Amino acid sequence: MLRCILIILDGLGDEYIPELNGTPLQYLSGKLKVLDKLAREGIGGIMYPLSPGIPASSDTAHLSIFGYDIKKEYPGRGFFEAIGAGIRLREGEVALRFNLATVKEVGKELIIVDRRAGRINDEDAEILTRDLQKRIEEEGLPVVLKHTLEHRGVMIIKPEKELSWRITDTDPHEINSPVLKAQPFEDTPSEERESAEYTAQIVNSVVKLSYEVLNNHELNVKREMKGLLKANIILPRGAGKAIRLMSFREKWGFRAAFVAGGPLYKGVARTIGMEEIKVKGATGRVDTNLEGKVKGVIQALDKGYDFVFLHIKALDTLSHDLNPKGKAEFIARIDKALEPLLELEDIVIAVTGDHSTSSIRGRHIGMPLPIAFWSRKIRRDNAKYFNEIELAEKGGLGVLRGHDILPILLDLSDRAMEYGLRPSPKPVFYIGARGEPLRV
Amino acid sequence: MLRCILIILDGLGDEYIPELNGTPLQYLSGKLKVLDKLAREGIGGIMYPLSPGIPASSDTAHLSIFGYDIKKEYPGRGFFEAIGAGIRLREGEVALRFNLATVKEVGKELIIVDRRAGRINDEDAEILTRDLQKRIEEEGLPVVLKHTLEHRGVMIIKPEKELSWRITDTDPHEINSPVLKAQPFEDTPSEERESAEYTAQIVNSVVKLSYEVLNNHELNVKREMKGLLKANIILPRGAGKAIRLMSFREKWGFRAAFVAGGPLYKGVARTIGMEEIKVKGATGRVDTNLEGKVKGVIQALDKGYDFVFLHIKALDTLSHDLNPKGKAEFIARIDKALEPLLELEDIVIAVTGDHSTSSIRGRHIGMPLPIAFWSRKIRRDNAKYFNEIELAEKGGLGVLRGHDILPILLDLSDRAMEYGLRPSPKPVFYIGARGEPLRV
Repeated sequence: MLRCILIILDGLGDEYIPELNGTPLQYLSGKLKVLDKLAREGIGGIMYPLSPGIPASSDTAHLSIFGYDIKKEYPGRGFFEAIGAGIRLREGEVALRFNLATVKEVGKELIIVDRRAGRINDEDAEILTRDLQKRIEEEGLPVVLKHTLEHRGVMIIKPEKELSWRITDTDPHEINSPVLKAQPFEDTPSEERESAEYTAQIVNSVVKLSYEVLNNHELNVKREMKGLLKANIILPRGAGKAIRLMSFREKWGFRAAFVAGGPLYKGVARTIGMEEIKVKGATGRVDTNLEGKVKGVIQALDKGYDFVFLHIKALDTLSHDLNPKGKAEFIARIDKALEPLLELEDIVIAVTGDHSTSSIRGRHIGMPLPIAFWSRKIRRDNAKYFNEIELAEKGGLGVLRGHDILPILLDLSDRAMEYGLRPSPKPVFYIGARGEPLRV
Repeated sequence: MLRCILIILDGLGDEYIPELNGTPLQYLSGKLKVLDKLAREGIGGIMYPLSPGIPASSDTAHLSIFGYDIKKEYPGRGFFEAIGAGIRLREGEVALRFNLATVKEVGKELIIVDRRAGRINDEDAEILTRDLQKRIEEEGLPVVLKHTLEHRGVMIIKPEKELSWRITDTDPHEINSPVLKAQPFEDTPSEERESAEYTAQIVNSVVKLSYEVLNNHELNVKREMKGLLKANIILPRGAGKAIRLMSFREKWGFRAAFVAGGPLYKGVARTIGMEEIKVKGATGRVDTNLEGKVKGVIQALDKGYDFVFLHIKALDTLSHDLNPKGKAEFIARIDKALEPLLELEDIVIAVTGDHSTSSIRGRHIGMPLPIAFWSRKIRRDNAKYFNEIELAEKGGLGVLRGHDILPILLDLSDRAMEYGLRPSPKPVFYIGARGEPLRV
């Protein structure tokens, strides 16, 4: 059996950049030692993380790639954000991110003046959150607020009754718009409808209470006198519910580790039971320790993990910052850093991204990603370069979805059970999956 | 309307074979008269029998290719094996294959020493099976065992109560592992749960009883004295339930015949009501009568069948035997034998495999297969050679799944009903499908 390395380069795919006469990857064609070798000596194709045209969020893309059905097994983004931020949630709790914001009353609506209350400082935010928390407790609402950084915080709802994450954001995500009511998604399954109503109602109560407590709070009066914006409301968004997801090990049989810098990716990987390999200087930013992260992958394999997920974040950030040249340069740096992986024995490497991010439009786009699988013994296609177009044209695997990646890795690493053989009662298809022994 | 020939070359796809500098089909590029012509003058692509990365078993692959939904319409492998072996099952019965095997007691578990009891001879196996059958009847278990060949047999459970095929194998498929309890699949539909529990319980009772009866059976004592392995247990696996599958004719409107050597393929084709064209010397092995089988196809068309399924098994066997050169040679022989088909008028030919089988790893793999469709009037792509990579790169049909093949054949043969037109109450899409006449 071979060991597997899955490399996800966040926001890797892109679109036509006039100054590069192609995507950043096309611009680098023939200059990428490792990535082009994986394409040339391996087999690949293009991959839609969810489906064509759908710009995936990082969490839904990663879950899909790890083989989870995001229609059924997605707990909402707030869950991963909370875990990634080091907050421990108990099963059944719902977490939302919130902003301290500035609103003004117009008629009966509260209109957003600033979504970040002028990027309020930690000290003021801490005081306001604490005083709001006191009133929440006096009112008997099952809610705990935690201030995190600047205008940001996390709101946790305790499950006195069944909760649901399927509620809308109160944050309209733009200024001059009214603060919104949290409401159940219309496509909430009927059995979850009541709990979504209940959860939304709690969130709405807390938002109203926050305006009541904060609008005339003495600290806000002082801030106004100083010419600062009042932080007179909290805007919860991105609800997520702490649920137990089937572990990656149960699903695929792999003993998996991960190397990642960004909190969200750590949150996702921890949630499904991957072990973290901590790397000094892994920041999730452009200044990350790429060489250290690749060493971390090798260490994980040396420790006996048979699957390592390596996540590199900064390409996405560079795209959001509209910096395609920076993106191309960083791809070249990643390519160089990956070189030690080619020396490994008994290995399958898969490399792709979680979604395309346009470095012209500065947002996630629904275009497919290039993907290449490589091992020393693998069917080879005629692709020479690792980029979106070469692999669409010449990839021997054709068009894949995110959820195809793990079955292909099981197969290439000699772990796939022939479909139809069932020594295990679980709906899993890896060699070694076993039911209970018969006892005499 | 054209007539259709569907040629399935079992285990056709492969991976990179260093000595061939490609797959066996790539190695033969430009040397295949018929297959390359079908690719060159036809249209093709790649085909995943189930989905990317999933190594299909032959039965699930064939059913998918014939348009059956293996999530809903799959009766379990044992059903086809039993039918292929000439055993008649009544509706509702469950059949399992079993091995006579050797186990040793370790604690409360039974550990596999040899899955085939040293390939026990027919005579000994017959005696042991017969004596076990007697005890089964004394115990009042609704089970009939039939010895077939060497260590092999078939176990049939009579439906005193509703039975289910959704139970796990007791055979762990490897030595030094414990004999497993038959258990319902965790993903058994809830309405089938009880019958799966009941079926599993019967299987477990018989397995325990077999150890009780056989471990100290006088014949086994004699075998041990002769230095032979005891055949002291039976290991049932691959449960299948006799159900009525919608016939191929009902589903697609074709009057279909088949030419095949291997028992499993005969079992599948018979189950869905295809008529067998018997060909002398069609063995399912390398020594099969290829020319005779192709003549059989032509005879079937002459008799008025408008669909012929031709199955050739040996490529899969050669792959399991780690013989890529033999595989390439046999492909060349098949290619030559197919020549007479090109002379036929009013014909569509589709050629592909049921799954890829690695002739390095000796097992089914999840890599896609090349597929080509050919008729005298058909859209042509730029593919020149019939192989996995050429058709991935140049195939005009892109990436297909097994279940796409029959709709394409209906379409190419002028039988497809425009989607949305429904003169028939059945969910079928062929011209000629009709409901009841209106009577005035």
